[in-house]
Amino acid sequence: MVVGFQGVPGSYSEQALIKYFGDEQITKHYQEFEDVFIALENEQIKYGVLPIENSTTGSIAKNYDLLKKYSYYIVGETSIKIEHHLIGLKGAKITELTHIYSHPQGFEQCSEYLKNFPNVQQVAYHNTAISAKYVKDSNNLTNAAIGSKRAAQLYGLETLNSQISDAKENVTRFIIVAKCLENNSTCNKMTLVFSLPHVAGSLCTALNQFANEAVNLVKIESRPVGDGSFSYYFYVDIEGNKDDDNVQRMLENIVSKTEIFKILGCYKSNI
Amino acid sequence: MVVGFQGVPGSYSEQALIKYFGDEQITKHYQEFEDVFIALENEQIKYGVLPIENSTTGSIAKNYDLLKKYSYYIVGETSIKIEHHLIGLKGAKITELTHIYSHPQGFEQCSEYLKNFPNVQQVAYHNTAISAKYVKDSNNLTNAAIGSKRAAQLYGLETLNSQISDAKENVTRFIIVAKCLENNSTCNKMTLVFSLPHVAGSLCTALNQFANEAVNLVKIESRPVGDGSFSYYFYVDIEGNKDDDNVQRMLENIVSKTEIFKILGCYKSNI
Repeated sequence: MVVGFQGVPGSYSEQALIKYFGDEQITKHYQEFEDVFIALENEQIKYGVLPIENSTTGSIAKNYDLLKKYSYYIVGETSIKIEHHLIGLKGAKITELTHIYSHPQGFEQCSEYLKNFPNVQQVAYHNTAISAKYVKDSNNLTNAAIGSKRAAQLYGLETLNSQISDAKENVTRFIIVAKCLENNSTCNKMTLVFSLPHVAGSLCTALNQFANEAVNLVKIESRPVGDGSFSYYFYVDIEGNKDDDNVQRMLENIVSKTEIFKILGCYKSNI
Repeated sequence: MVVGFQGVPGSYSEQALIKYFGDEQITKHYQEFEDVFIALENEQIKYGVLPIENSTTGSIAKNYDLLKKYSYYIVGETSIKIEHHLIGLKGAKITELTHIYSHPQGFEQCSEYLKNFPNVQQVAYHNTAISAKYVKDSNNLTNAAIGSKRAAQLYGLETLNSQISDAKENVTRFIIVAKCLENNSTCNKMTLVFSLPHVAGSLCTALNQFANEAVNLVKIESRPVGDGSFSYYFYVDIEGNKDDDNVQRMLENIVSKTEIFKILGCYKSNI
Protein backbone atom coordinates (compact mmCIF):
# COMPACT_ATOMS: atom_id res chain seq x y z
CA MET A 1 0.00 0.00 0.00
CA VAL A 2 1.32 3.43 -0.98
CA VAL A 3 0.27 6.75 0.59
CA GLY A 4 0.78 10.16 -1.04
CA PHE A 5 1.19 13.70 0.25
CA GLN A 6 1.82 17.13 -1.18
CA GLY A 7 5.24 18.63 -0.63
CA VAL A 8 8.65 17.14 -0.05
CA PRO A 9 10.24 15.19 2.81
CA GLY A 10 10.30 17.45 5.85
CA SER A 11 6.89 19.00 5.21
CA TYR A 12 4.16 19.14 7.84
CA SER A 13 2.07 16.90 5.55
CA GLU A 14 4.74 14.20 5.75
CA GLN A 15 4.71 14.54 9.56
CA ALA A 16 0.92 14.05 9.51
CA LEU A 17 1.28 11.00 7.27
CA ILE A 18 3.82 9.44 9.66
CA LYS A 19 1.57 10.20 12.66
CA TYR A 20 -1.41 8.48 11.00
CA PHE A 21 0.21 5.59 9.09
CA GLY A 22 3.51 5.11 10.97
CA ASP A 23 7.03 5.56 9.62
CA GLU A 24 7.34 2.24 7.82
CA GLN A 25 4.81 3.34 5.22
CA ILE A 26 5.79 3.51 1.53
CA THR A 27 5.11 7.11 0.46
CA LYS A 28 5.04 9.23 -2.69
CA HIS A 29 5.08 13.01 -2.73
CA TYR A 30 3.63 15.48 -5.19
CA GLN A 31 4.05 19.15 -6.01
CA GLU A 32 0.41 20.30 -5.94
CA PHE A 33 -2.62 19.33 -3.85
CA GLU A 34 -4.37 18.34 -7.07
CA ASP A 35 -1.53 15.97 -8.01
CA VAL A 36 -2.48 13.88 -4.95
CA PHE A 37 -6.03 13.56 -6.30
CA ILE A 38 -4.68 12.65 -9.76
CA ALA A 39 -2.45 9.99 -8.14
CA LEU A 40 -5.54 8.54 -6.42
CA GLU A 41 -7.38 8.59 -9.77
CA ASN A 42 -4.50 6.75 -11.47
CA GLU A 43 -4.22 4.31 -8.55
CA GLN A 44 -0.59 5.22 -7.92
CA ILE A 45 -1.54 5.61 -4.25
CA LYS A 46 -4.28 4.16 -2.05
CA TYR A 47 -4.58 7.13 0.31
CA GLY A 48 -3.64 10.81 0.18
CA VAL A 49 -2.86 13.05 3.17
CA LEU A 50 -3.93 16.68 2.79
CA PRO A 51 -4.23 19.69 5.13
CA ILE A 52 -7.83 20.86 5.51
CA GLU A 53 -7.80 23.40 8.34
CA ASN A 54 -5.45 25.44 10.50
CA SER A 55 -6.47 26.71 13.93
CA THR A 56 -5.12 30.21 13.16
CA THR A 57 -5.79 30.83 9.47
CA GLY A 58 -8.85 28.62 8.96
CA SER A 59 -9.79 26.21 6.21
CA ILE A 60 -7.57 25.29 3.29
CA ALA A 61 -10.24 26.13 0.75
CA LYS A 62 -8.47 24.57 -2.23
CA ASN A 63 -8.75 21.09 -0.72
CA TYR A 64 -12.48 21.50 -0.10
CA ASP A 65 -12.85 22.46 -3.76
CA LEU A 66 -10.77 19.45 -4.88
CA LEU A 67 -12.78 17.00 -2.75
CA LYS A 68 -15.89 18.27 -4.54
CA LYS A 69 -14.25 18.25 -7.99
CA TYR A 70 -12.93 14.66 -7.76
CA SER A 71 -15.81 13.20 -5.70
CA TYR A 72 -13.41 11.35 -3.41
CA TYR A 73 -13.86 10.62 0.28
CA ILE A 74 -12.44 11.48 3.67
CA VAL A 75 -11.63 8.24 5.52
CA GLY A 76 -9.58 9.61 8.42
CA GLU A 77 -8.15 12.71 10.08
CA THR A 78 -5.17 13.63 12.21
CA SER A 79 -3.63 16.87 13.44
CA ILE A 80 -0.12 18.25 13.83
CA LYS A 81 1.15 21.10 15.97
CA ILE A 82 2.76 23.59 13.59
CA GLU A 83 5.92 25.25 14.86
CA HIS A 84 7.37 27.73 12.40
CA HIS A 85 10.99 28.86 12.60
CA LEU A 86 13.06 31.25 10.53
CA ILE A 87 15.77 29.03 9.07
CA GLY A 88 18.78 29.84 6.89
CA LEU A 89 22.30 28.90 5.97
CA LYS A 90 25.02 28.67 8.59
CA GLY A 91 26.42 32.17 9.00
CA ALA A 92 23.28 33.96 7.77
CA LYS A 93 22.42 37.12 9.72
CA ILE A 94 18.82 38.18 10.23
CA THR A 95 19.71 41.82 9.59
CA GLU A 96 21.16 40.99 6.17
CA LEU A 97 18.26 39.02 4.74
CA THR A 98 16.77 40.20 1.44
CA HIS A 99 14.36 37.31 0.66
CA ILE A 100 12.22 35.01 2.79
CA TYR A 101 10.69 31.91 1.18
CA SER A 102 7.65 30.01 2.43
CA HIS A 103 4.18 28.75 1.66
CA PRO A 104 1.60 31.61 1.66
CA GLN A 105 0.12 30.08 4.84
CA GLY A 106 3.58 30.26 6.45
CA PHE A 107 3.67 34.01 5.74
CA GLU A 108 0.12 34.47 7.00
CA GLN A 109 0.71 32.51 10.20
CA CYS A 110 3.84 34.58 10.97
CA SER A 111 2.52 37.95 9.76
CA GLU A 112 3.16 39.75 13.07
CA TYR A 113 6.78 38.57 13.21
CA LEU A 114 7.30 39.51 9.54
CA LYS A 115 6.46 43.14 10.30
CA ASN A 116 10.06 43.29 11.58
CA PHE A 117 11.19 42.87 7.95
CA PRO A 118 9.43 45.59 5.95
CA ASN A 119 12.13 45.59 3.26
CA VAL A 120 12.57 41.86 2.86
CA GLN A 121 10.81 40.34 -0.14
CA GLN A 122 8.44 37.46 0.63
CA VAL A 123 8.47 34.80 -2.07
CA ALA A 124 5.64 32.25 -2.08
CA TYR A 125 6.56 28.61 -2.71
CA HIS A 126 4.43 25.50 -2.89
CA ASN A 127 5.60 24.23 0.44
CA THR A 128 7.59 25.30 3.48
CA ALA A 129 10.00 22.38 3.00
CA ILE A 130 10.55 23.20 -0.69
CA SER A 131 11.39 26.74 0.47
CA ALA A 132 13.99 25.33 2.87
CA LYS A 133 15.49 23.22 0.06
CA TYR A 134 15.60 26.28 -2.21
CA VAL A 135 17.43 28.32 0.43
CA LYS A 136 19.99 25.51 0.88
CA ASP A 137 20.49 25.13 -2.89
CA SER A 138 20.81 28.90 -3.39
CA ASN A 139 23.83 28.91 -1.06
CA ASN A 140 23.02 32.60 -0.50
CA LEU A 141 23.31 34.05 3.01
CA THR A 142 20.66 36.71 2.28
CA ASN A 143 17.94 34.04 1.78
CA ALA A 144 15.94 32.45 4.58
CA ALA A 145 12.84 30.25 4.81
CA ILE A 146 9.96 29.81 7.23
CA GLY A 147 9.62 26.11 8.06
CA SER A 148 9.83 23.32 10.59
CA LYS A 149 12.79 22.09 12.67
CA ARG A 150 12.58 18.87 10.67
CA ALA A 151 12.95 20.78 7.38
CA ALA A 152 15.97 22.63 8.82
CA GLN A 153 17.60 19.33 9.79
CA LEU A 154 16.83 17.57 6.51
CA TYR A 155 18.25 20.40 4.39
CA GLY A 156 21.17 21.30 6.65
CA LEU A 157 19.91 24.74 7.69
CA GLU A 158 20.25 26.57 11.00
CA THR A 159 17.49 28.10 13.08
CA LEU A 160 17.88 31.90 12.91
CA ASN A 161 14.82 32.57 15.08
CA SER A 162 12.60 29.95 16.66
CA GLN A 163 8.83 29.85 17.33
CA ILE A 164 7.85 32.76 15.11
CA SER A 165 4.12 31.93 14.62
CA ASP A 166 1.65 34.66 15.62
CA ALA A 167 -0.40 32.19 17.65
CA LYS A 168 1.35 30.20 20.36
CA GLU A 169 -0.98 27.28 19.71
CA ASN A 170 -1.06 26.58 15.99
CA VAL A 171 -2.52 23.25 14.90
CA THR A 172 -3.23 21.94 11.39
CA ARG A 173 -5.81 19.24 10.84
CA PHE A 174 -5.14 16.83 7.95
CA ILE A 175 -7.58 14.53 6.18
CA ILE A 176 -6.89 11.09 4.75
CA VAL A 177 -8.53 10.87 1.32
CA ALA A 178 -9.44 7.71 -0.64
CA LYS A 179 -11.31 6.85 -3.82
CA CYS A 180 -14.01 4.93 -1.94
CA LEU A 181 -16.16 5.64 1.09
CA GLU A 182 -15.10 3.63 4.15
CA ASN A 183 -17.41 3.06 7.08
CA ASN A 184 -17.10 0.88 10.14
CA SER A 185 -18.24 0.96 13.74
CA THR A 186 -15.30 3.14 14.89
CA CYS A 187 -16.41 6.03 12.62
CA ASN A 188 -18.01 8.79 14.70
CA LYS A 189 -17.77 11.75 12.33
CA MET A 190 -19.04 12.50 8.83
CA THR A 191 -18.47 15.22 6.26
CA LEU A 192 -21.32 16.19 3.92
CA VAL A 193 -21.53 18.67 1.06
CA PHE A 194 -24.65 20.26 -0.38
CA SER A 195 -25.89 23.14 -2.49
CA LEU A 196 -29.29 24.78 -2.12
CA PRO A 197 -32.25 25.65 -4.31
CA HIS A 198 -32.64 29.40 -4.95
CA VAL A 199 -35.55 29.94 -2.60
CA ALA A 200 -35.71 32.07 0.55
CA GLY A 201 -34.91 30.17 3.73
CA SER A 202 -33.32 27.18 1.98
CA LEU A 203 -30.20 27.25 4.20
CA CYS A 204 -32.29 27.20 7.37
CA THR A 205 -34.52 24.44 5.99
CA ALA A 206 -31.47 22.30 5.23
CA LEU A 207 -29.84 22.95 8.60
CA ASN A 208 -33.07 22.15 10.41
CA GLN A 209 -32.78 18.57 9.19
CA PHE A 210 -29.82 18.16 11.55
CA ALA A 211 -31.58 19.76 14.51
CA ASN A 212 -34.76 17.71 13.93
CA GLU A 213 -32.78 14.49 14.42
CA ALA A 214 -30.47 15.86 17.14
CA VAL A 215 -27.43 15.45 14.89
CA ASN A 216 -24.64 17.70 16.15
CA LEU A 217 -22.93 20.01 13.64
CA VAL A 218 -19.27 20.58 14.47
CA LYS A 219 -18.25 22.67 11.46
CA ILE A 220 -19.79 24.49 8.53
CA GLU A 221 -17.78 25.86 5.64
CA SER A 222 -19.11 27.65 2.56
CA ARG A 223 -17.33 27.72 -0.78
CA PRO A 224 -18.49 29.54 -3.90
CA VAL A 225 -20.10 27.42 -6.62
CA GLY A 226 -17.87 29.42 -8.98
CA ASP A 227 -20.39 30.56 -11.58
CA GLY A 228 -19.89 34.26 -10.83
CA SER A 229 -22.87 34.38 -8.49
CA PHE A 230 -22.61 34.35 -4.71
CA SER A 231 -24.08 30.89 -4.27
CA TYR A 232 -22.30 28.24 -2.27
CA TYR A 233 -21.48 24.64 -1.61
CA PHE A 234 -21.81 24.03 2.13
CA TYR A 235 -19.44 21.56 3.73
CA VAL A 236 -20.71 20.29 7.05
CA ASP A 237 -18.95 18.08 9.63
CA ILE A 238 -21.34 16.20 11.91
CA GLU A 239 -20.97 13.84 14.84
CA GLY A 240 -22.29 10.33 14.32
CA ASN A 241 -22.01 7.10 12.38
CA LYS A 242 -23.68 6.64 8.99
CA ASP A 243 -25.61 3.67 10.41
CA ASP A 244 -26.98 5.50 13.46
CA ASP A 245 -30.78 5.65 13.32
CA ASN A 246 -30.98 9.45 13.67
CA VAL A 247 -28.23 9.98 11.06
CA GLN A 248 -30.07 7.64 8.67
CA ARG A 249 -33.32 9.62 9.08
CA MET A 250 -31.49 12.94 8.64
CA LEU A 251 -29.83 11.67 5.43
CA GLU A 252 -33.21 10.56 4.04
CA ASN A 253 -34.83 13.91 4.85
CA ILE A 254 -32.12 16.30 3.72
CA VAL A 255 -31.93 15.08 0.13
CA SER A 256 -35.23 16.73 -0.83
CA LYS A 257 -34.21 20.02 0.87
CA THR A 258 -30.94 20.38 -1.07
CA GLU A 259 -30.02 20.61 -4.74
CA ILE A 260 -26.79 18.64 -4.75
CA PHE A 261 -26.19 16.42 -1.72
CA LYS A 262 -23.29 14.04 -1.16
CA ILE A 263 -21.63 12.20 1.71
CA LEU A 264 -17.95 13.20 1.57
CA GLY A 265 -16.69 10.88 4.25
CA CYS A 266 -17.09 8.70 7.35
CA TYR A 267 -14.16 8.56 9.77
CA LYS A 268 -12.96 8.50 13.34
CA SER A 269 -12.70 11.93 14.90
CA ASN A 270 -9.25 12.96 16.02
CA ILE A 271 -10.32 15.83 18.29
CA MET B 1 -15.10 63.36 3.83
CA VAL B 2 -12.19 61.05 3.03
CA VAL B 3 -12.47 57.38 2.02
CA GLY B 4 -9.64 54.87 2.24
CA PHE B 5 -8.77 51.67 0.40
CA GLN B 6 -5.96 49.13 0.40
CA GLY B 7 -3.63 49.16 -2.58
CA VAL B 8 -2.58 51.82 -5.04
CA PRO B 9 -4.39 53.72 -7.80
CA GLY B 10 -5.45 51.19 -10.43
CA SER B 11 -6.41 48.47 -7.94
CA TYR B 12 -9.78 46.74 -8.00
CA SER B 13 -10.44 48.26 -4.56
CA GLU B 14 -10.11 51.74 -6.03
CA GLN B 15 -12.55 50.76 -8.78
CA ALA B 16 -15.02 49.60 -6.11
CA LEU B 17 -14.58 52.86 -4.21
CA ILE B 18 -15.32 54.90 -7.36
CA LYS B 19 -18.37 52.74 -8.12
CA TYR B 20 -19.79 53.29 -4.61
CA PHE B 21 -18.75 56.89 -3.82
CA GLY B 22 -18.21 58.39 -7.30
CA ASP B 23 -14.97 59.69 -8.79
CA GLU B 24 -15.00 63.11 -7.10
CA GLN B 25 -14.29 61.52 -3.75
CA ILE B 26 -11.13 62.44 -1.80
CA THR B 27 -9.31 59.15 -1.21
CA LYS B 28 -6.34 57.79 0.70
CA HIS B 29 -4.69 54.46 0.03
CA TYR B 30 -2.86 52.09 2.33
CA GLN B 31 -0.50 49.15 1.96
CA GLU B 32 -2.26 46.59 4.17
CA PHE B 33 -5.91 45.80 4.90
CA GLU B 34 -5.21 46.50 8.57
CA ASP B 35 -3.87 49.97 7.74
CA VAL B 36 -7.39 50.88 6.57
CA PHE B 37 -8.76 49.91 10.01
CA ILE B 38 -6.00 51.89 11.72
CA ALA B 39 -6.87 54.92 9.54
CA LEU B 40 -10.52 54.59 10.65
CA GLU B 41 -9.35 54.36 14.27
CA ASN B 42 -7.24 57.52 13.87
CA GLU B 43 -10.07 59.29 12.03
CA GLN B 44 -7.91 59.90 8.96
CA ILE B 45 -10.79 58.50 6.92
CA LYS B 46 -14.55 58.22 7.46
CA TYR B 47 -15.06 55.03 5.43
CA GLY B 48 -12.85 52.19 4.23
CA VAL B 49 -13.45 50.01 1.16
CA LEU B 50 -12.29 46.40 1.51
CA PRO B 51 -12.78 43.19 -0.49
CA ILE B 52 -14.72 40.55 1.45
CA GLU B 53 -15.54 37.80 -1.04
CA ASN B 54 -14.71 36.61 -4.54
CA SER B 55 -17.10 34.44 -6.52
CA THR B 56 -14.28 32.04 -7.52
CA THR B 57 -11.95 31.84 -4.54
CA GLY B 58 -14.38 32.60 -1.70
CA SER B 59 -14.12 34.84 1.33
CA ILE B 60 -11.19 37.13 2.08
CA ALA B 61 -10.73 35.70 5.55
CA LYS B 62 -8.31 38.36 6.75
CA ASN B 63 -10.98 41.06 6.49
CA TYR B 64 -13.49 39.02 8.49
CA ASP B 65 -10.83 38.66 11.18
CA LEU B 66 -10.10 42.41 11.12
CA LEU B 67 -13.79 43.35 11.40
CA LYS B 68 -13.91 41.23 14.55
CA LYS B 69 -10.60 42.55 15.92
CA TYR B 70 -11.50 46.25 15.51
CA SER B 71 -15.24 45.97 16.25
CA TYR B 72 -16.10 48.23 13.30
CA TYR B 73 -19.18 48.03 11.09
CA ILE B 74 -20.24 47.25 7.54
CA VAL B 75 -22.37 50.15 6.26
CA GLY B 76 -22.51 49.29 2.55
CA GLU B 77 -21.45 46.85 -0.15
CA THR B 78 -20.69 46.91 -3.86
CA SER B 79 -19.23 44.47 -6.35
CA ILE B 80 -16.80 44.66 -9.24
CA LYS B 81 -16.28 42.27 -12.14
CA ILE B 82 -12.64 41.17 -11.95
CA GLU B 83 -10.89 40.81 -15.31
CA HIS B 84 -7.31 39.67 -14.96
CA HIS B 85 -4.79 40.17 -17.75
CA LEU B 86 -1.13 39.29 -18.10
CA ILE B 87 0.55 42.68 -18.49
CA GLY B 88 4.17 43.63 -19.13
CA LEU B 89 6.53 46.12 -20.69
CA LYS B 90 6.31 47.02 -24.34
CA GLY B 91 8.36 44.43 -26.21
CA ALA B 92 8.04 41.73 -23.52
CA LYS B 93 7.56 38.20 -24.89
CA ILE B 94 5.48 35.64 -23.01
CA THR B 95 8.00 32.89 -23.81
CA GLU B 96 10.84 34.87 -22.23
CA LEU B 97 9.21 35.63 -18.87
CA THR B 98 11.07 34.55 -15.73
CA HIS B 99 8.91 36.23 -13.02
CA ILE B 100 5.19 36.99 -12.69
CA TYR B 101 4.06 39.38 -9.95
CA SER B 102 0.58 39.55 -8.45
CA HIS B 103 -1.53 39.32 -5.32
CA PRO B 104 -1.86 35.69 -4.09
CA GLN B 105 -5.56 35.86 -5.07
CA GLY B 106 -4.50 36.87 -8.60
CA PHE B 107 -2.37 33.72 -8.84
CA GLU B 108 -5.15 31.59 -7.41
CA GLN B 109 -7.81 33.01 -9.73
CA CYS B 110 -5.58 32.36 -12.79
CA SER B 111 -4.13 29.03 -11.62
CA GLU B 112 -5.22 27.10 -14.75
CA TYR B 113 -3.63 29.66 -17.08
CA LEU B 114 -0.43 29.72 -14.98
CA LYS B 115 0.08 25.99 -15.59
CA ASN B 116 1.46 27.13 -18.97
CA PHE B 117 4.41 28.65 -17.08
CA PRO B 118 5.86 25.85 -14.93
CA ASN B 119 9.32 27.46 -14.85
CA VAL B 120 8.28 31.05 -14.21
CA GLN B 121 8.60 32.17 -10.60
CA GLN B 122 5.43 33.59 -9.02
CA VAL B 123 6.15 36.45 -6.64
CA ALA B 124 3.38 37.49 -4.25
CA TYR B 125 2.81 41.22 -3.78
CA HIS B 126 0.33 43.12 -1.65
CA ASN B 127 -1.78 44.16 -4.60
CA THR B 128 -2.17 43.50 -8.31
CA ALA B 129 -1.62 47.20 -9.07
CA ILE B 130 1.55 47.37 -6.96
CA SER B 131 2.78 44.39 -8.98
CA ALA B 132 2.12 46.33 -12.19
CA LYS B 133 4.02 49.33 -10.82
CA TYR B 134 6.94 47.06 -9.84
CA VAL B 135 7.12 45.56 -13.33
CA LYS B 136 7.15 49.06 -14.86
CA ASP B 137 9.84 50.29 -12.44
CA SER B 138 11.98 47.17 -12.97
CA ASN B 139 12.22 48.01 -16.69
CA ASN B 140 12.93 44.31 -17.20
CA LEU B 141 11.31 42.50 -20.16
CA THR B 142 11.34 39.16 -18.34
CA ASN B 143 8.93 40.46 -15.66
CA ALA B 144 5.14 40.52 -16.01
CA ALA B 145 2.19 41.12 -13.69
CA ILE B 146 -1.36 39.86 -13.38
CA GLY B 147 -3.70 42.84 -13.07
CA SER B 148 -6.47 44.95 -14.53
CA LYS B 149 -6.63 46.94 -17.80
CA ARG B 150 -6.75 50.08 -15.64
CA ALA B 151 -3.48 49.12 -13.89
CA ALA B 152 -1.84 48.49 -17.28
CA GLN B 153 -2.94 51.94 -18.51
CA LEU B 154 -1.91 53.75 -15.32
CA TYR B 155 1.57 52.23 -15.28
CA GLY B 156 2.17 52.25 -19.03
CA LEU B 157 2.16 48.49 -19.53
CA GLU B 158 0.90 46.42 -22.47
CA THR B 159 -1.52 43.52 -22.35
CA LEU B 160 0.43 40.35 -23.17
CA ASN B 161 -2.58 38.06 -22.77
CA SER B 162 -6.11 39.17 -21.91
CA GLN B 163 -8.86 37.54 -19.83
CA ILE B 164 -6.72 34.91 -18.11
CA SER B 165 -8.98 34.17 -15.09
CA ASP B 166 -9.98 30.52 -14.64
CA ALA B 167 -13.64 31.47 -14.25
CA LYS B 168 -15.29 33.49 -17.01
CA GLU B 169 -17.46 35.22 -14.45
CA ASN B 170 -15.28 36.47 -11.62
CA VAL B 171 -16.83 39.01 -9.27
CA THR B 172 -15.45 40.49 -6.05
CA ARG B 173 -17.78 41.90 -3.42
CA PHE B 174 -16.45 44.84 -1.40
CA ILE B 175 -17.70 46.16 1.93
CA ILE B 176 -17.78 49.76 3.10
CA VAL B 177 -16.54 49.88 6.70
CA ALA B 178 -17.11 52.64 9.28
CA LYS B 179 -16.46 53.16 12.98
CA CYS B 180 -20.17 53.39 13.80
CA LEU B 181 -23.21 51.32 12.96
CA GLU B 182 -25.48 53.01 10.40
CA ASN B 183 -29.10 52.02 9.96
CA ASN B 184 -31.90 53.53 7.93
CA SER B 185 -35.00 52.35 6.11
CA THR B 186 -33.06 51.44 2.93
CA CYS B 187 -30.98 48.83 4.79
CA ASN B 188 -32.17 45.32 3.88
CA LYS B 189 -29.18 43.21 4.88
CA MET B 190 -27.29 42.63 8.12
CA THR B 191 -24.04 40.90 9.10
CA LEU B 192 -23.77 39.25 12.52
CA VAL B 193 -20.93 37.47 14.28
CA PHE B 194 -21.17 35.00 17.14
CA SER B 195 -19.28 32.29 18.98
CA LEU B 196 -20.89 29.33 20.71
CA PRO B 197 -20.83 27.70 24.12
CA HIS B 198 -19.04 24.31 24.16
CA VAL B 199 -22.16 22.17 24.34
CA ALA B 200 -23.47 19.66 21.83
CA GLY B 201 -25.94 21.10 19.35
CA SER B 202 -25.08 24.74 20.05
CA LEU B 203 -24.65 25.60 16.34
CA CYS B 204 -28.08 24.20 15.48
CA THR B 205 -29.65 25.95 18.46
CA ALA B 206 -28.23 29.28 17.34
CA LEU B 207 -29.22 28.79 13.70
CA ASN B 208 -32.73 27.82 14.73
CA GLN B 209 -33.25 31.33 16.04
CA PHE B 210 -33.22 32.55 12.43
CA ALA B 211 -35.60 29.85 11.22
CA ASN B 212 -38.00 30.43 14.13
CA GLU B 213 -38.50 34.03 13.02
CA ALA B 214 -38.36 33.31 9.26
CA VAL B 215 -35.18 35.37 8.90
CA ASN B 216 -33.39 34.33 5.70
CA LEU B 217 -29.67 33.45 5.95
CA VAL B 218 -27.77 34.35 2.78
CA LYS B 219 -24.26 33.47 3.89
CA ILE B 220 -22.45 31.73 6.71
CA GLU B 221 -18.69 31.86 7.17
CA SER B 222 -16.67 30.27 9.97
CA ARG B 223 -13.31 31.55 11.16
CA PRO B 224 -11.13 30.00 13.85
CA VAL B 225 -11.18 31.69 17.27
CA GLY B 226 -7.40 31.25 17.10
CA ASP B 227 -6.68 29.65 20.47
CA GLY B 228 -5.30 26.43 18.93
CA SER B 229 -8.65 24.65 19.24
CA PHE B 230 -11.05 24.12 16.37
CA SER B 231 -13.71 26.48 17.66
CA TYR B 232 -15.10 29.26 15.50
CA TYR B 233 -16.56 32.68 15.09
CA PHE B 234 -19.56 32.41 12.76
CA TYR B 235 -20.23 35.33 10.43
CA VAL B 236 -23.79 35.32 9.15
CA ASP B 237 -25.39 37.55 6.49
CA ILE B 238 -29.17 37.82 6.81
CA GLU B 239 -31.93 39.54 4.87
CA GLY B 240 -33.86 42.19 6.76
CA ASN B 241 -33.74 45.52 8.55
CA LYS B 242 -32.68 45.83 12.18
CA ASP B 243 -36.06 47.37 12.99
CA ASP B 244 -38.17 44.63 11.40
CA ASP B 245 -40.30 42.89 14.03
CA ASN B 246 -39.04 39.39 13.25
CA VAL B 247 -35.41 40.56 13.16
CA GLN B 248 -35.90 42.28 16.55
CA ARG B 249 -37.29 39.07 18.08
CA MET B 250 -34.48 36.98 16.56
CA LEU B 251 -31.87 39.38 17.98
CA GLU B 252 -33.44 39.18 21.45
CA ASN B 253 -33.54 35.37 21.39
CA ILE B 254 -30.14 34.59 19.92
CA VAL B 255 -28.11 36.41 22.60
CA SER B 256 -28.77 33.71 25.21
CA LYS B 257 -27.90 30.92 22.73
CA THR B 258 -24.47 32.34 21.84
CA GLU B 259 -21.34 33.18 23.82
CA ILE B 260 -20.21 36.32 22.00
CA PHE B 261 -22.84 38.01 19.81
CA LYS B 262 -22.48 41.24 17.87
CA ILE B 263 -24.17 43.08 15.02
CA LEU B 264 -21.43 43.76 12.47
CA GLY B 265 -23.46 45.89 10.10
CA CYS B 266 -26.71 47.10 8.54
CA TYR B 267 -26.63 48.03 4.85
CA LYS B 268 -28.34 47.96 1.51
CA SER B 269 -27.78 44.74 -0.41
CA ASN B 270 -26.00 45.08 -3.72
CA ILE B 271 -26.95 41.67 -5.15
